[in-house]
Amino acid sequence: MPLDLGAKGSCQIGGNISTNAGGLRLFRYGSLHATVLGLEVVLPDGTILDVLNTLKKDNTGYHLSHLFIGAEGTLGFVTKVVIQCPVKPSSTHVTFLGVDSFDTVLKIVKLARSNLGEILSSCEMMDHEGVQSVSSKFDIQIPVKKCPFYMLLETSGSNQEHDSAKLSKFLEDGLENNVILDAVMFSEQSKIQKIWPLQRCGSCLKDATYNYDISLSLQDFYSIIPIMRERLKDQDVVTVCGYGHLGDGNLHVNISVREPNPAVYALVEPFIYEWTSQHKGSISAEHGIGLAKKHVIHLSKSETSLTLMRQIKQMMDPNQIMNPYKVF
Amino acid sequence: MPLDLGAKGSCQIGGNISTNAGGLRLFRYGSLHATVLGLEVVLPDGTILDVLNTLKKDNTGYHLSHLFIGAEGTLGFVTKVVIQCPVKPSSTHVTFLGVDSFDTVLKIVKLARSNLGEILSSCEMMDHEGVQSVSSKFDIQIPVKKCPFYMLLETSGSNQEHDSAKLSKFLEDGLENNVILDAVMFSEQSKIQKIWPLQRCGSCLKDATYNYDISLSLQDFYSIIPIMRERLKDQDVVTVCGYGHLGDGNLHVNISVREPNPAVYALVEPFIYEWTSQHKGSISAEHGIGLAKKHVIHLSKSETSLTLMRQIKQMMDPNQIMNPYKVF
Repeated sequence: MPLDLGAKGSCQIGGNISTNAGGLRLFRYGSLHATVLGLEVVLPDGTILDVLNTLKKDNTGYHLSHLFIGAEGTLGFVTKVVIQCPVKPSSTHVTFLGVDSFDTVLKIVKLARSNLGEILSSCEMMDHEGVQSVSSKFDIQIPVKKCPFYMLLETSGSNQEHDSAKLSKFLEDGLENNVILDAVMFSEQSKIQKIWPLQRCGSCLKDATYNYDISLSLQDFYSIIPIMRERLKDQDVVTVCGYGHLGDGNLHVNISVREPNPAVYALVEPFIYEWTSQHKGSISAEHGIGLAKKHVIHLSKSETSLTLMRQIKQMMDPNQIMNPYKVF
Repeated sequence: MPLDLGAKGSCQIGGNISTNAGGLRLFRYGSLHATVLGLEVVLPDGTILDVLNTLKKDNTGYHLSHLFIGAEGTLGFVTKVVIQCPVKPSSTHVTFLGVDSFDTVLKIVKLARSNLGEILSSCEMMDHEGVQSVSSKFDIQIPVKKCPFYMLLETSGSNQEHDSAKLSKFLEDGLENNVILDAVMFSEQSKIQKIWPLQRCGSCLKDATYNYDISLSLQDFYSIIPIMRERLKDQDVVTVCGYGHLGDGNLHVNISVREPNPAVYALVEPFIYEWTSQHKGSISAEHGIGLAKKHVIHLSKSETSLTLMRQIKQMMDPNQIMNPYKVF
């Protein structure tokens, strides 16, 4: 299955399609637009639309499946899906790195792309605050020395020996040139499964966490975190942390407070959305719009785009019965 | 650039988007739905729709770009595109194989997927009739002994030594087990460039060729060729040949005649489309519908799908001015 995400175990595949879930391996296998070949969808008038194509190539008319991917159920209800699954990799390695700055994180991304090439399947970054929270809450030891940033890189390939050689060379280059401060590498599944939770800083979320899911170009990727810390320095905030999928430019921002705090909230929103918009980012990388972001969708989409979207919605669901009040 | 196709040099990128061009490396990099991140499109009313997103993840409203990919210019005119380009592979190898039957071709696909895994970037098959035509017309020697089928496999990776080892092992396994009858392998660019034209059996097309571009599941992939030869055995036909992108299930069928021949045409159409439809294939894998296939689009798409497509067309282009008379 090309899709893997934090919500695995509770999410459903129809919901994944409707929210265009991205997750941990989009970097390797592409978005659902890349892997979904066909859908069955119940349209607002009850008609069943069968575009359950199993072919990789089919250029006969408009590509209707894509209209429902990411439409948040507002155009139809996804009931069946054909998804293209890659050959399961026979060799998987994970390395957990300690890094001194975000600039160095970006250097490591370059190094990983050139050394690991086609076997790189995940490229994640987490700041110390995020990893420290998970480490304490779930009692998982951070496997490298304390550093301002950590990275988790995964490789998936068809040849254990070649993959291991590529990863070792990458680590040697990084350690020798002092871009990597500390590193561990795992190839056993049991150890890999124990290390992944350190990436899931979002699993520490409490009710009183303000959390955001934005995407940005890599040069702007982490800048919002120090800005937000400065902005909130006089407030009663537990942590401001950032972690995300570097391969996709998707940053999760978590602002954790002791209890719901209107003063903090007022400093965070709409500032974070406006800042993201000014930096040509997306105010919702993978979580969608729903109810919570209806009032800021215009910060990521032009009026012309929104008009066309509303026309499509009006044409397909004139009675507004599909997932009402959402998105627009 | 993730897209490479026979029409390189004469096609244009806007046309590639509008026809959802597939080409030689769809197997590796996915379709244009996978690689196009954003578009600028002139809508039928003259409005410029700017969805020139450069982000890999952006779930803010409907994913409008996908509506124009493969719409054959009937919904708008593509004027700009943001496309995601992979890191250029530093190592490329091509192997040209001779094979005894189509069943063996399928065995080799499996062998290639397991041995070559993530570095396999093209997996092409051609029958002897097709390759013989190119070989004669362009005076290119077939580099292996005469066989009923040939395959051209390309690998692209980041490590010359690893890629070469994987490919050598694949060839050794195939030759030892007699699934490959004869093989050559090239890693020099100049030699690779000389061998690729043997795959382009379509480059021999004459005005009086009936040519088809269908997609099918792999078990049905080649069956239409012997059926068509039997059907046309008493006609004045030069060759019936089949070649295509095995990784994508896309078969090109060329029926070459000395001059336009209504008797041949009547035996070929609509039979080939009906046969493809009965085998759950697509009557147009990558060439689109245009004018020529309007009358058979219903063989690949349900009435519900066609109704929704027509509604979208009517809503966006009520005056039917965009690429008029095409598709519907």
